[in-house]
Amino acid sequence: MCRLVKDGAVASGFRIDGLQYCNWSRRIFEQMREAELDAVHVTATYWENTRELLANIGTWHRYFVEHADLIVPVRSAADIDYARATKRTGIVLGLQNCSPIEDSVDLVSVLKELNVHIMQLSYNNQSLLCTGYAEQQDSGLTKFGREVIREMNRVGMVVDTSHTAERSTLEAIEFSSRPTVVSHANPQTARQTARNKSDRVMRALAESGGLMGFSCYPFHLPNGSETTLEQFTEMVAEAVEIMGVQHLAIGTDLCQDQPVEVLTWMRNGNWARVMDYGEGSEEKPDWPASLSWLRGVSDFPKIEQGLRDRGFTPSEVDALMGGNWRSFLEHALAPEKRSEV
Amino acid sequence: MCRLVKDGAVASGFRIDGLQYCNWSRRIFEQMREAELDAVHVTATYWENTRELLANIGTWHRYFVEHADLIVPVRSAADIDYARATKRTGIVLGLQNCSPIEDSVDLVSVLKELNVHIMQLSYNNQSLLCTGYAEQQDSGLTKFGREVIREMNRVGMVVDTSHTAERSTLEAIEFSSRPTVVSHANPQTARQTARNKSDRVMRALAESGGLMGFSCYPFHLPNGSETTLEQFTEMVAEAVEIMGVQHLAIGTDLCQDQPVEVLTWMRNGNWARVMDYGEGSEEKPDWPASLSWLRGVSDFPKIEQGLRDRGFTPSEVDALMGGNWRSFLEHALAPEKRSEV
Repeated sequence: MCRLVKDGAVASGFRIDGLQYCNWSRRIFEQMREAELDAVHVTATYWENTRELLANIGTWHRYFVEHADLIVPVRSAADIDYARATKRTGIVLGLQNCSPIEDSVDLVSVLKELNVHIMQLSYNNQSLLCTGYAEQQDSGLTKFGREVIREMNRVGMVVDTSHTAERSTLEAIEFSSRPTVVSHANPQTARQTARNKSDRVMRALAESGGLMGFSCYPFHLPNGSETTLEQFTEMVAEAVEIMGVQHLAIGTDLCQDQPVEVLTWMRNGNWARVMDYGEGSEEKPDWPASLSWLRGVSDFPKIEQGLRDRGFTPSEVDALMGGNWRSFLEHALAPEKRSEV
Repeated sequence: MCRLVKDGAVASGFRIDGLQYCNWSRRIFEQMREAELDAVHVTATYWENTRELLANIGTWHRYFVEHADLIVPVRSAADIDYARATKRTGIVLGLQNCSPIEDSVDLVSVLKELNVHIMQLSYNNQSLLCTGYAEQQDSGLTKFGREVIREMNRVGMVVDTSHTAERSTLEAIEFSSRPTVVSHANPQTARQTARNKSDRVMRALAESGGLMGFSCYPFHLPNGSETTLEQFTEMVAEAVEIMGVQHLAIGTDLCQDQPVEVLTWMRNGNWARVMDYGEGSEEKPDWPASLSWLRGVSDFPKIEQGLRDRGFTPSEVDALMGGNWRSFLEHALAPEKRSEV
């Protein structure tokens, strides 16, 4: 289970990416293998309703058959080990929005049965559960939000607050009986934007046993698309001071091969009539340019080299590159107690 | 694993009911236990679309939690043994219509992942797959119908043609690479109605390794609600001559505690503006009176006694009462070959 790294050292750890939404193709699944990714948390929903999510899951079922030599569905954390042992990449299905449960708490266990293991409580906007980071008012958890978190805790669906506003995030961390995640975001001290997380959120997350994955989306980084790998790992080192290395990981937010129309849909869904440019602008409506050191999925291991160069120990690098995700999911994906569903 | 029967003999076999659509309640689940039912195939859809089915499955998830001492979800045939060993009843989810896959072949594997193990190709009407028994023209399998059967074969979802018209049923038996079932119907020789099955269908079903479950719905029986247990077992004995005992079983079609409104909905769905009375009439729109020997779920074992009295051997009685269903499902619920989904 060991892999030889460039400088002759041996890495025993996992490589797990805590978020991607690529324009999936055999080429990208092959690149996951080039990068020796043991698992990737993939987004199956931004704005979709129940029926639309089921169509997306159906598409994933096709991928699992057609590319069975490259990818494996993750039903429990043990499937990540199985994927790794068979030199394939485990696919962890997740939602960036709660829209597919519509107004029904019962759909939490139904979607869990379809191997939806992670769900954001809100995307950019107010949801039925809580407030997204792009709203002006953050009213915290709703009544339905509390019911849904309780049910997610019961069945083993991870609460993700990456796009959730500050108060709602803090309330979710407090209310959830199980640790939560910020699968893909960065410290606000690295870049001051509502999409990134405050020291207060980061501390609460760490204290509750949660996990934050560093985003590589240029709008979340200190110097945008020009951010160097050294600046990225400096951000990592500073966050480690606040949260401790065991609570940090990677969630690249890679959207490889996606056309601008998908970005426009991610920002506008079905709800905006006046164009919402999100983190872009009318002058710059397109995807930001890629980082020079992360042009796509196959560059994922470069982060590992950067962390070593920053001076992290081999075990710290392993933890950050995937070990922490693996440990977290071991507990997080299991039902709260033996349950029939 | 043996149960003592009234006359002192020991029955080692399974008790499985191949179809029920009761107004589910703790009382009925308790009656399943009184009847020592090891498994029941329950209907989760008559006319529902995808989203509506998911709500029904969500309701079943609640039942599985709330009545965990009485019922168990069946994910594979082994769960029937698990239910039996823990003195509970295994619930096999099935659909009496293909409406929940809407127009998508991809939803077959998605619904299978939700433990939908049996699906009728059509209810009374023409479906997107084939023709129901109540239509005037039977045009056989559609293009989509063939695609769906192929996918059902792949994932291990049983093709059920209980309400399907003759030609469509014969074509489904012929086209399916795996044995099919008529979960609940009777021989047309016992009662001449399009809802029952011809000798030709019964022979084709048996030759293909399929199974037919005898219905106890009065409209399918030789003497309606007045049909005696002796007349019922006479029908069984005659069918055994045609199909062989190993291809026959029970599918009571019990709809215990359902109000007439549910019957009206079963007959009319969302499609009829002019009231369809189905097998009833304007003068008799209500449920037929119960059989004196099968007033509800708890009477299921009386069929066993009737079969013994008819002269069936203990092993034949075991086969008819559930052994055949258990053997059939062993193979039928497993995916065609090792598959990732």
